[in-house]
Amino acid sequence: MSAAPGTLILVPVSLGETPWNTYLPEEARRAAAAVRHFVVENPKAARAQLRRMEHPLPLRELELRPLPAEGSDRELDDLLAPLFAGHDLGLMSDAGCPGVADPGARLVARAHAHGLRVHPLVGPSSILLALMASGLNGQNFAFCGYLPVAPADRNARIRQIEDESKRLSRTQIFIETPYRNERMLEALLAQCQPQTRLCLAMELNCAGETILTLTIAQWRKRRPPELSRRPALFLILAD
Amino acid sequence: MSAAPGTLILVPVSLGETPWNTYLPEEARRAAAAVRHFVVENPKAARAQLRRMEHPLPLRELELRPLPAEGSDRELDDLLAPLFAGHDLGLMSDAGCPGVADPGARLVARAHAHGLRVHPLVGPSSILLALMASGLNGQNFAFCGYLPVAPADRNARIRQIEDESKRLSRTQIFIETPYRNERMLEALLAQCQPQTRLCLAMELNCAGETILTLTIAQWRKRRPPELSRRPALFLILAD
Repeated sequence: MSAAPGTLILVPVSLGETPWNTYLPEEARRAAAAVRHFVVENPKAARAQLRRMEHPLPLRELELRPLPAEGSDRELDDLLAPLFAGHDLGLMSDAGCPGVADPGARLVARAHAHGLRVHPLVGPSSILLALMASGLNGQNFAFCGYLPVAPADRNARIRQIEDESKRLSRTQIFIETPYRNERMLEALLAQCQPQTRLCLAMELNCAGETILTLTIAQWRKRRPPELSRRPALFLILAD
Repeated sequence: MSAAPGTLILVPVSLGETPWNTYLPEEARRAAAAVRHFVVENPKAARAQLRRMEHPLPLRELELRPLPAEGSDRELDDLLAPLFAGHDLGLMSDAGCPGVADPGARLVARAHAHGLRVHPLVGPSSILLALMASGLNGQNFAFCGYLPVAPADRNARIRQIEDESKRLSRTQIFIETPYRNERMLEALLAQCQPQTRLCLAMELNCAGETILTLTIAQWRKRRPPELSRRPALFLILAD
């Protein structure tokens, strides 16, 4: 006699230090609070998130297993073991939605390979919030991750994604490590066409939220906002 | 003496007939419930959503103005008038997040053109939920909207987005009108490579939620799920 398998529950976490009722629907929080077994990007960050969402069990009674950076199928299947034993399993990254600009997709893929049920909870994604608030095209968009760091490669990539944006009317979304944000903005102002619109979306769903969309020509005339150390997304739409 | 301008608040709405605590954080609902002036995709759907989120005011005391399909800048600016009078203004589409695979982006763009503050609330997006739950690549993805309806054009477009997926390791996300879902699935099974993974994500965040990711070869051997009249997203990742 074996129990029906559990469900892999994808648990979004906060984008900053905000209480759970600012970023999770009550039902999503309830679903996450009923889980005892978790696979997490980083146990320390996960414990802080579980405290933030007021998980009813003492943290020492929860199982938190780290997601390996490069796990084999066998290691990933081992992490799914609670599901086969009939328990639900939560998957959490350090911020936002697991598997979206964050680790987790390979574990989800293994769950599908075994025919297990996967259930995503509603929660915050900086990519989605930035796109909604940018006023740029939300009918056709791409998330490109990080651009190359070396200036010549980065500049070539900026021109390439701007060309694609113009050709397809596609909003191009990308991120940068916070300490490189200023250099990214300088590169965009130098490389892009004056009429291209650039949205800078910072500290989304947090106290310092700042979202500005201007043309490159307007950005060039303006003193740039404070950018260093602020989590930011960059979005461009060429005209 | 003029008041400080209000904020354009982007209000996500439910993906189906579910109570507000399944899709909105308490703080997002509180922010939306404090607004009296709305611009909406469709007043009838908006009234149902405002009832669902238990807006504290009688609906007849709320101003609901429809978003024109092809509004001029002047018409859009007229819709923003409550902001200049110091009131917050809510923007809602019929389902999910305004401006993302839904109308609203041009109104948001006008708000940015006037230097007005735009604040997106956390809520459900079928695109984001599908991507999280697909197990496909969430580091590089594109939303392509609707594919062409004419079979030859649709098939050519499918092959083109599959080629791009393979070249860039990019997850390609697209939608179809529910009554055409079966034909879209047949076309994908006929056009795509056997090892390409296809995720079908239906009725997300609703009672009938079904999310399946299989290779094209596996889909071809399987009886397809009931698809007609179910809101669905299609996601592919070529190997």
